[in-house]
Amino acid sequence: MKMLLIISDGLGDVQDSELQNKTPLEYGTFSNLNKMCKEGICGMMDPIAPGTIPGSDTAHISILGEDPYTYYNGRGYLEALGTGLRPGPNDVGFRLNFGTVTDGIIEDRRAGRSSFGLKRLVKDINDSVKLDVPYQFKEATGTRAALVLEGDNLSNKVSDGDPHNIFEKPKKVVALDGSPEAERTASIINDFITKSQKVLEGHPVNEERKANGQLPVNFLLVRGAGLRPRYPTFQERYGVSAACIAATALIRGVAKCYGFDLIDVEGMTGEYNTDIKAKTKATLEALHKYDFVFTHFKPTDTASHDGDPQKKIQMIGYVDYLVSMIMKHQDRDDIVVAFTGDHTTPCSVGNHTGESVPIMMWGGRVRRDEVNHFDEISCAKGGLGHIRGQDVVPMLMNQALKNKLFGA
Amino acid sequence: MKMLLIISDGLGDVQDSELQNKTPLEYGTFSNLNKMCKEGICGMMDPIAPGTIPGSDTAHISILGEDPYTYYNGRGYLEALGTGLRPGPNDVGFRLNFGTVTDGIIEDRRAGRSSFGLKRLVKDINDSVKLDVPYQFKEATGTRAALVLEGDNLSNKVSDGDPHNIFEKPKKVVALDGSPEAERTASIINDFITKSQKVLEGHPVNEERKANGQLPVNFLLVRGAGLRPRYPTFQERYGVSAACIAATALIRGVAKCYGFDLIDVEGMTGEYNTDIKAKTKATLEALHKYDFVFTHFKPTDTASHDGDPQKKIQMIGYVDYLVSMIMKHQDRDDIVVAFTGDHTTPCSVGNHTGESVPIMMWGGRVRRDEVNHFDEISCAKGGLGHIRGQDVVPMLMNQALKNKLFGA
Repeated sequence: MKMLLIISDGLGDVQDSELQNKTPLEYGTFSNLNKMCKEGICGMMDPIAPGTIPGSDTAHISILGEDPYTYYNGRGYLEALGTGLRPGPNDVGFRLNFGTVTDGIIEDRRAGRSSFGLKRLVKDINDSVKLDVPYQFKEATGTRAALVLEGDNLSNKVSDGDPHNIFEKPKKVVALDGSPEAERTASIINDFITKSQKVLEGHPVNEERKANGQLPVNFLLVRGAGLRPRYPTFQERYGVSAACIAATALIRGVAKCYGFDLIDVEGMTGEYNTDIKAKTKATLEALHKYDFVFTHFKPTDTASHDGDPQKKIQMIGYVDYLVSMIMKHQDRDDIVVAFTGDHTTPCSVGNHTGESVPIMMWGGRVRRDEVNHFDEISCAKGGLGHIRGQDVVPMLMNQALKNKLFGA
Repeated sequence: MKMLLIISDGLGDVQDSELQNKTPLEYGTFSNLNKMCKEGICGMMDPIAPGTIPGSDTAHISILGEDPYTYYNGRGYLEALGTGLRPGPNDVGFRLNFGTVTDGIIEDRRAGRSSFGLKRLVKDINDSVKLDVPYQFKEATGTRAALVLEGDNLSNKVSDGDPHNIFEKPKKVVALDGSPEAERTASIINDFITKSQKVLEGHPVNEERKANGQLPVNFLLVRGAGLRPRYPTFQERYGVSAACIAATALIRGVAKCYGFDLIDVEGMTGEYNTDIKAKTKATLEALHKYDFVFTHFKPTDTASHDGDPQKKIQMIGYVDYLVSMIMKHQDRDDIVVAFTGDHTTPCSVGNHTGESVPIMMWGGRVRRDEVNHFDEISCAKGGLGHIRGQDVVPMLMNQALKNKLFGA
């Protein structure tokens, strides 16, 4: 019995005036999602708790089974891991943006979103900047990068250098709890920012960017210091093998800490242009090899952040295709599928909110209900009732008889 | 206002191919359960938490109100208590089977399920085996027995001697946590096994068993070391008197630790042949004397473990009779009844699983809903929504106005 968890990021929504006051799931035509809903059981899920607004990281920690209030300690480590760096268990990770600073003031936090030349800049920084500790530094998607400071006696209790607003000065990173570890970490990261700034200023890449009409990158905005979350892996807790198919570095990092193998897929971008057929094929292939497969689809959230309900409907169509292929190619008796979102991102708000999201389960011996349309309104009448993110994996493990009997 | 909790063991099920893809509760004709459902309020209950697979012990600890993760520490003490032994507060209890070992290998873990002569063997072991601590040893149902080692400095952190498989050697009991208490307990229990083996070998009872064509009993397979779970009693928590009508030793033990009086009923066996009329009569009588009565019915679980949905339907018919007599002989205004199962045991699986179970409440001032058929699909639409095992007793106490006001 295989287990498949499909998460469409930011899937949940609310009535939208652009959609005759329906939600994207209500308004669109998703025949395969609705077929799965009709054949399975559905309900509503609070990713963390009712009203709690989840981040992508905390939502996924919760839906993959553990309590984010216990385990979450910053985004940087997860992002670094998902970017392909290899932080040790006590290292501290950071997220960074290549930014444009003019006369000491931030002109653009993302340097016009052009990644031109960043690879070369990263290489030159790695070659020339020396710190008090070994470090790992790597470019990520867009103008993002990840940094790991290696060694013991480091802390994630340091402030962001990124003020998160343009027309402000970059901030000096400071210790937040007064501990020697935080003081030391702040000092090292400030050293990194200063020394890398010297590499960036006057670098030939910036001459080329200017010649191309692009903003120069002359400053690293650092944020999200994070330590490794020490939740148990799926192998430790359930004795099952698990794989993750996701483009987004943060999600990859969360899954990696859960002990998932990360499967790389050609054409998987996490953007509107992602190759859903390649991702679908990879999902079907992974189900041959692994007990538990988690496939993550980002663009539904991107469309929501962009405030574009029609685009969101188009992107839900991509997961409708994914679901159609699962139902077509998997024997229903030998798999249990959970399909849901990690949080609500209403197109009308453009940010994460704390409403519950619809969820459905299909396959195996799951009970049925009378709901046959997968959306935020219908699923509230489903047989699963209202569950929480942390219930999802135990429920899948139960269906696959991989949960241990508690007691006798 | 009286409170009655009726638990039909392993009641929950899933769609079954032998029942036109319905569950036993959906397929069968249970006019009294459905009448109670129509007149009352229903919902679904997760005995412990969604997806968690409960044991009989942990499920009952939870449904009787306390957190099994806090209190559960093994089955042996509960079983010994339910068998009629009188362990002290620090004693350690064990479950045992009389087994048949041939040439050092287990031939039958239950000696052909024949209890012939066991009472005499138990007496002779009690008379002749001396250990470093006082002990209590008693035969239970079938070829089972219970053992209590008395005194302080004992531990439940010891392994099973029973390998739980035939064609294997019995195991030496070892300490699991390296503590002196566990080492001492393992040493004493191994001494008991060795000394009792000497009594069993060549005992006249075994000559008689062989003459009867029965397997000899020549070895005690020990398992499930347990200490007393220290949850509060109903008297302590709610100030109410409580009685339990159950045949199963483990359930009797759980209830006894909750401070319930155990009512013995002639003809109550915990098997298919149990006298449901006698049990019903005992329930009605107990309601005169006690504030809270808990009646447990085991055979629905037995039929599920036997993979026999028709038998399960027949056994649910027994509780349908019990429920009919409650509705007939109790004034609805003066009682609140909760009827549910302790976990799901699908006949198609033959073991406990982690799906929720239907529950209904009837009598007193309980609100109504629109559900009028008591089964796993309909009750998901009930007015109670989805509750957890630990909610049940507080809800009954509330109906009986026995819950204390929290706050002012």
